Amino acid sequence: MKTKDRILLTSLKMFNEQGERNVSTNHIAAALSISPGNLYYHFRNKNEIVYQLFLKYEEEVQGFMSVPEQRSVTYQDKVNYLEAILNSMWDYRFLHRDLQHLLQDDERLRIAYREFSSRTVADGRRVLQSMADSGVLLANKEQIDALILNIWVLVVSWSSFLQSISIQQNDSTSMRKTLLKRAIYQIIALEEPFLCESLKPMLPELKKKYLDGSSTDPMALFPTLLDDAQGN
Amino acid sequence: MKTKDRILLTSLKMFNEQGERNVSTNHIAAALSISPGNLYYHFRNKNEIVYQLFLKYEEEVQGFMSVPEQRSVTYQDKVNYLEAILNSMWDYRFLHRDLQHLLQDDERLRIAYREFSSRTVADGRRVLQSMADSGVLLANKEQIDALILNIWVLVVSWSSFLQSISIQQNDSTSMRKTLLKRAIYQIIALEEPFLCESLKPMLPELKKKYLDGSSTDPMALFPTLLDDAQGN
Repeated sequence: MKTKDRILLTSLKMFNEQGERNVSTNHIAAALSISPGNLYYHFRNKNEIVYQLFLKYEEEVQGFMSVPEQRSVTYQDKVNYLEAILNSMWDYRFLHRDLQHLLQDDERLRIAYREFSSRTVADGRRVLQSMADSGVLLANKEQIDALILNIWVLVVSWSSFLQSISIQQNDSTSMRKTLLKRAIYQIIALEEPFLCESLKPMLPELKKKYLDGSSTDPMALFPTLLDDAQGN
Repeated sequence: MKTKDRILLTSLKMFNEQGERNVSTNHIAAALSISPGNLYYHFRNKNEIVYQLFLKYEEEVQGFMSVPEQRSVTYQDKVNYLEAILNSMWDYRFLHRDLQHLLQDDERLRIAYREFSSRTVADGRRVLQSMADSGVLLANKEQIDALILNIWVLVVSWSSFLQSISIQQNDSTSMRKTLLKRAIYQIIALEEPFLCESLKPMLPELKKKYLDGSSTDPMALFPTLLDDAQGN
């Protein structure tokens, strides 16, 4: 692997695990056993690393958002999009954990993020509209507008929300599973009232899959003091 | 006003405007023209100020969440709760802007925030259940569980979401208005499919009120590059 790619990969891992603010370019160079000068040869500063990681994240997410041209969008397509997007969000979770700080620090990232957000919301709305056109989603334009914004806020906030109630970043495997599955369950619940009758028979099984044996009770997501004493 | 209260009030203002991380106890003392020693007499450290502010915020929000005992909860009650809660969230917006960092820094706050979150979600669910019992909300237990979690994530994330797309904290009046009104519009849209037929005639006017003349189009929330060039 090229040094440049190794720097990106290691930075991503360290940002995700320790938070971007707690990781300096010197830490990254040390973790890679390269000199700071070698790192600066590839990246002018930490903002440049963050920006390049954002571009990779953006490229991944954009890749999922394309509407199939040959046929209508099915509900399974939509659930698959969501799963892929939430996977990418997890892989680049440092971005949303401290987004405002990152945006405030770098105008180039700020502009890129705004473009990305508005493009992704527009693409998501196109997917919902395509479902409405094919009769899968029974919603008018106003309802689709409100729905896509609720889905967007839920998706970009979900990982922060889970972290705010658990703050146990060590167990990232179970965290990832909870993140993905429950978020998709919540979005299915959001859309359910608008789905056509012919889809409804498939929903119980789909919801069961994304609940993954956990309770529908939201209280189950809030760790109790007892869990805390055991976990830490 | 007592010095202790003046310290809390000034800290809140500075945390909201500049971000908690950028404000030290020395900055707060200087803004109040008191000595750091005088500040430390009242608050051991900055975490202690943050914790006391959290308790005030918690007290405000808990005050709104009580279900009336003499009569059923109306939909207008619920909208009024939301408006009051979002007002408090705006007044203490530094808390949610950098929540994970604050929680990671202070175990006492972490425990208090978890208790607060789970209590508030439980109270919110009780309000929805009371609406279901009186026939205003046509939703079963599973749907209420999913709905309250979606509302909670939307409410606690809304201010961060708006800040991430605008990062223009100077114009706090228009920000507050947008924050409150659009969030309530989005939550009405979330609940609309579950509301009973007799409520539906009041919804267009209510939604119009909270859209406040802005477009239903979510794209209107994303500032364009042109706005940015004009705004900064």
